[in-house]
Amino acid sequence: MSYSGHRIIRTVRCKNEQVPGTLARLLTAVAEEGGSVANIELIRQTHRHTIREIVIQSDDEEQTQRIINAMVHNEGTEVLEVRDDVLELHVGGKIAIRSRYIVNTPAILRRVYTPGVAEVCKRIENDPSLARMYTSISHFVAIITDGTAILGLGDIGPVAGMPVMEGKAMLMESFVGLSGMPILLNTKDVDTIVETIAAIAPTFSFIQLEDISAPRCFEIEERLQKRLDIPVMHDDQHGTAVVVTAALTNACKQAGTDLMQATIGQIGLGAAGMAISRMAMGLTGHSVLGADLSQEALQRFSDYGGTPSSLREIMDAADIVVATTGVPNLIKPEWVRKGQIILAISNPKSEIDPGVAMKAGAAFAADGKSVNNVLGFPGIIRGAVDAYVPYVSREMYLAAAQTIADMAAPGDLVPSPLDKKVHFAVARAVAQTARAQGLARADLAPYEEE
Amino acid sequence: MSYSGHRIIRTVRCKNEQVPGTLARLLTAVAEEGGSVANIELIRQTHRHTIREIVIQSDDEEQTQRIINAMVHNEGTEVLEVRDDVLELHVGGKIAIRSRYIVNTPAILRRVYTPGVAEVCKRIENDPSLARMYTSISHFVAIITDGTAILGLGDIGPVAGMPVMEGKAMLMESFVGLSGMPILLNTKDVDTIVETIAAIAPTFSFIQLEDISAPRCFEIEERLQKRLDIPVMHDDQHGTAVVVTAALTNACKQAGTDLMQATIGQIGLGAAGMAISRMAMGLTGHSVLGADLSQEALQRFSDYGGTPSSLREIMDAADIVVATTGVPNLIKPEWVRKGQIILAISNPKSEIDPGVAMKAGAAFAADGKSVNNVLGFPGIIRGAVDAYVPYVSREMYLAAAQTIADMAAPGDLVPSPLDKKVHFAVARAVAQTARAQGLARADLAPYEEE
Repeated sequence: MSYSGHRIIRTVRCKNEQVPGTLARLLTAVAEEGGSVANIELIRQTHRHTIREIVIQSDDEEQTQRIINAMVHNEGTEVLEVRDDVLELHVGGKIAIRSRYIVNTPAILRRVYTPGVAEVCKRIENDPSLARMYTSISHFVAIITDGTAILGLGDIGPVAGMPVMEGKAMLMESFVGLSGMPILLNTKDVDTIVETIAAIAPTFSFIQLEDISAPRCFEIEERLQKRLDIPVMHDDQHGTAVVVTAALTNACKQAGTDLMQATIGQIGLGAAGMAISRMAMGLTGHSVLGADLSQEALQRFSDYGGTPSSLREIMDAADIVVATTGVPNLIKPEWVRKGQIILAISNPKSEIDPGVAMKAGAAFAADGKSVNNVLGFPGIIRGAVDAYVPYVSREMYLAAAQTIADMAAPGDLVPSPLDKKVHFAVARAVAQTARAQGLARADLAPYEEE
Repeated sequence: MSYSGHRIIRTVRCKNEQVPGTLARLLTAVAEEGGSVANIELIRQTHRHTIREIVIQSDDEEQTQRIINAMVHNEGTEVLEVRDDVLELHVGGKIAIRSRYIVNTPAILRRVYTPGVAEVCKRIENDPSLARMYTSISHFVAIITDGTAILGLGDIGPVAGMPVMEGKAMLMESFVGLSGMPILLNTKDVDTIVETIAAIAPTFSFIQLEDISAPRCFEIEERLQKRLDIPVMHDDQHGTAVVVTAALTNACKQAGTDLMQATIGQIGLGAAGMAISRMAMGLTGHSVLGADLSQEALQRFSDYGGTPSSLREIMDAADIVVATTGVPNLIKPEWVRKGQIILAISNPKSEIDPGVAMKAGAAFAADGKSVNNVLGFPGIIRGAVDAYVPYVSREMYLAAAQTIADMAAPGDLVPSPLDKKVHFAVARAVAQTARAQGLARADLAPYEEE
């Protein structure tokens, strides 16, 4: 799951003297401490002072403190308040389950609850397929985690991972109108996880597995998908692979590399790396080189059709290098081959800084900031739910990747995840592919028709 | 779970000639077929015609058809349309999971999702108690069913029971602002149910078990409550018992019976009957007579301190009779003792019609229409969640019952469930009792203070 740096965000309310250059000097002070500035909002202006709220971003608490100190000591600046907006936004949680109707009269109570509801229950009992029409199951998506691989934070437990799951649910509603329900599992046992999810599956139209560590994630997804007739998707695998494949497609276009003929090397064969290389093999029809410290991972990679290799061999041989190891600065500049495409997407620190890679001769380089899996899962899930598929096929994932690549502006790797058109285009592509494959079990919504 | 008759609801759009008495004649025709009329809405009126929408309620499809036929043949009436509003309201489901913030700028995306969210995760990892402040766990309530005892409909399966679970969730939000999440279990196995719920429990602040058949419901609730440190409540037991106890309290007041000294008999020892009799024993300190066809139920009842008896013995000996058997007309009028209080609350048909019971000499009689468990669970859960109790104690349930009884208008058994003041009063009473018992693990909200 994507996670970019500058994770500490503070809002600093500053009163600057009305002297030209004060703000510029203040921002220089922030920059000198390595902080970055996001929004600046003008709050009030008089002939003597300007009050602004400046959002600063940094990597850790200590740096945050240094930045704020620098701001306090800037000539002509008075710091009025330092606020943690992120924390404030989280008070009470970020999602809620809402009634679609106001229940305030006996008439509505009798319709949505007893006695009226009984007739709807009986209809569904007689024809279970009606549940898709008359219940919220049709838009409920489970967002399930055991908390073992939350962002770049690792095994912090499911409860500490809840803010991420709620974030996913927010994006699902905001971008594609689905109801994402976080489910926190207090077990790491593969059997128990599979049994638990299978037992609650009738509640949902789609099972999204989130932030479950490798290699357990592979077995859990495969076993569940075999048992259930609704899609099961481990987002950290397939969502990430879709977005990386889209980015690779555009990187190749920009660098003049033929993706279908290129030698591709995958460094790091965890959840994301394994799925990225599998998708690349599915797309190109060729094997991919792969490196990992774990023999088990290399064996699995080999079973999927990959060619086990090493870090240095990949750097020597590959036209395209994707790195997902989580190890900062793993790739030395002197290893970069002239003309290579390098996507080193570990967060918060990349395996090689894109600027350094370009200077070392790469034709194209990017880090994790450029590939956010927010671009993938909302549309993929929406398309799968609309077409009512039993699983998401490789072809549907590739259609999603192609759509995301196509919608990037010229010169960009991928489009903005805030552009809803992207998510609906992805949904349409996934649903149409499902129909073409004969996997759609529902008539498509009008927007999915050509 | 309460379920009252007239479960089929239709909206009939009628055009009546502008002749005095046409509407009255139309309503007479409906009544003669045994239908009842809910809302009548005037849609349009001209000098020649009046168009109204008349909501009719009936017991089954056949009766519905007879009523509509009678309306079609009423002199001066033209039926324009017959609509199933209940079904229309259910299209797409009745609840949704919503984002509390609109995600439409990079700034908000970075706050609610990566990278900003990571800091909130780390804080919770360091101090898990912060999850109550910064996540939606604080208001998430699981509404869990295996579909074995849905309303009066029986074992129709969890998916067919979904409209009821959604109804509960709507009421939870509408009345007390909680997020109720239906969870449908595709297993009836007690062990699997207990393991599944225990595995997903970290997601929630309260586990409400719904419409799970006896005797499995007893074991499931008890085993789960032993394992979890959040409350587990089988609503069909305790929610129903709270509302029946409130109704009994007021029935005694009206009949001049001393509840604390009265001989109480419980006919039917399923989920509701068992809980009602246990609450009565807890309240009065005396044993209760109980009758059931199942030896297992009688044994369990005896273990709880009840006195196994028979239907006829109870009718002979009890000052107060509560019946929850599901058997229509089980109680013969000639068995009714003069001055008895009879709550025969099975739905859709009572064990004895209240009018018949009164004629036979009862001092007070009511059926299931008077006791809706909607009055109980929202406030109980809200109070328990606010006080952050590990379980709901007998004293908290009794406080809820007393509050509901106290809030009934003079002459009424219970107040209206649509009165939000009732639910907040129940919540306050439950939370205050928790605090008095030393079971509250959170400071109370201002409205809970005296």
